[in-house]
Amino acid sequence: MITKMESRDAMELLRRGAIGRLGCVIDEGPYVVPVNYVFDGDSILVHSLPGRKIAALRANPRACIQVDEIVHEFEWRSAIAYGTYEEVKDPDERDSLLQRILERFPHFTPVESAMSQVEGIPETIIFRIKVESATGVCET
Amino acid sequence: MITKMESRDAMELLRRGAIGRLGCVIDEGPYVVPVNYVFDGDSILVHSLPGRKIAALRANPRACIQVDEIVHEFEWRSAIAYGTYEEVKDPDERDSLLQRILERFPHFTPVESAMSQVEGIPETIIFRIKVESATGVCET
Repeated sequence: MITKMESRDAMELLRRGAIGRLGCVIDEGPYVVPVNYVFDGDSILVHSLPGRKIAALRANPRACIQVDEIVHEFEWRSAIAYGTYEEVKDPDERDSLLQRILERFPHFTPVESAMSQVEGIPETIIFRIKVESATGVCET
Repeated sequence: MITKMESRDAMELLRRGAIGRLGCVIDEGPYVVPVNYVFDGDSILVHSLPGRKIAALRANPRACIQVDEIVHEFEWRSAIAYGTYEEVKDPDERDSLLQRILERFPHFTPVESAMSQVEGIPETIIFRIKVESATGVCET
């Protein structure tokens, strides 16, 4: 049976998750890409190299992130959070958020560290999606 | 190292996949939802109950489907196919496509069969996303 999730359950699923599918709009059409993220209860925190999604979100900051736990075709839950893209540029805030991301994804550390020390490598972008609403559905 | 996939490799990833994240646009914002699908080399075939994604795609048929294989943070591939939503209404074509979907997802059979025989239950919608282009990236 498919049922709607309460907002707090959708938030809890977002908090448990680590891989989400980020949706944004490019030239009035949809674009979806997987991202590793941390949800701090308020915002989805992501770091990324420059590229298609960053260009898209700079042009149109409306974003969503969809997270699911799929056991099989008839047992799954999926939550979606809607929000607005905000790039974090303040150096202290960048460091603090990157720290939170690296705590969750320690394997990122060597690459990020290495990259931050190599000139000419594009700088990692830290952004947040400030969550404005979240919903979910589940089948059990 | 992150590299772009050839279109044929993106197509092959779509063909192997069974769960994708369908992206569409609602009120100029993104919407993403997981779907089970079959890719026949030409179109993504999906069946669905009426709901938010169907309403969205009827209003704006631009769609994408993102499929990935994630081993861990540094070994993954992700493909995205772009296309146009087309609802299949011809009864013979519906039967034929539903058959293809059920061959891939045999567990759907009892529910779909039961539902199709119960009056008052909303009819299953069969739709295709005719793939116009596909791209992908992978990290290995």
